[in-house]
Amino acid sequence: MKQFIRTIPDYPKPGIMFRDITTLLGDAKGFRGAVDALVQLHDGAKFDLVAGIEARGFILGGAVAHQLQLGFVPVRKKGKLPWKTIGQEYALEYGTDTVEIHSDAIREGDRVLLIDDLIATGGTAEAAVKLMSRAGGRVTAASFVIELPELGGRKLLEGLGIEVLSLCSFDGH
Amino acid sequence: MKQFIRTIPDYPKPGIMFRDITTLLGDAKGFRGAVDALVQLHDGAKFDLVAGIEARGFILGGAVAHQLQLGFVPVRKKGKLPWKTIGQEYALEYGTDTVEIHSDAIREGDRVLLIDDLIATGGTAEAAVKLMSRAGGRVTAASFVIELPELGGRKLLEGLGIEVLSLCSFDGH
Repeated sequence: MKQFIRTIPDYPKPGIMFRDITTLLGDAKGFRGAVDALVQLHDGAKFDLVAGIEARGFILGGAVAHQLQLGFVPVRKKGKLPWKTIGQEYALEYGTDTVEIHSDAIREGDRVLLIDDLIATGGTAEAAVKLMSRAGGRVTAASFVIELPELGGRKLLEGLGIEVLSLCSFDGH
Repeated sequence: MKQFIRTIPDYPKPGIMFRDITTLLGDAKGFRGAVDALVQLHDGAKFDLVAGIEARGFILGGAVAHQLQLGFVPVRKKGKLPWKTIGQEYALEYGTDTVEIHSDAIREGDRVLLIDDLIATGGTAEAAVKLMSRAGGRVTAASFVIELPELGGRKLLEGLGIEVLSLCSFDGH
């Protein structure tokens, strides 16, 4: 998987090694391999919905939902959804941000598979997990193409009782 | 298809009937039906890549690319891509906006299937088409879940030699 990922040094700021998955998405084998692996990781588990986090989580999550023959819930940045929403704030390095879903996006008891391209601190994923719970569902598993283990996102989500899986990991931030 | 689409009157402003596809995406049958129909519309045509327009076009385009076993190119809003980009400006009702792709996203001669949720005036799609041409490829077909025929997007794209297909259409704006 790593061979398809482009590393961009010092982006978006000095000292950060940005992991760019557009090179993976653009390669037929890379994209297919990633989606199939995300699906197979949870082989046998039962989900009612797939949720993806804006925006790269939409590309992967849409493909995973289609492959699993499930519906898809977009977890969007604040102000993007047209109907009634519920929102969840989360901390950034400086300040806060908010993710939203439509208030009717989840049915009571729905088991949700959460998909995003990368897990770092897990802050956005945790906010998405809280949103699903408040809407009456439950994220039972979360899958990522890339994990940055030093930033602790896996521990955070596992502490919430969520199975966490990733296709590859990179040292550092 | 229309039964899965929610209409929100007077959003984002008075007089506009907003067509909300989150209800379609969230329904397993609706989402699968839409993606399968988008794929089947182009049965037999040869593409090298699928491109989707941020953000709803990512969900549908990711699923279509996976189903067609092709790579996916995200057409993103300005400033979102981490590497070298090329950008294309397009007109909005008031002012302009810009979409971007990575400058290495397309190989010379690539035939591209463009996917978005909705075609209205076709301004964003036209900008994406120009981007692909400047990068050395060519959009040969474009597919949308929803078409608003009165706004002329189909004519605009067909005038550029592109096959345009949609799953349903609505009167008005």
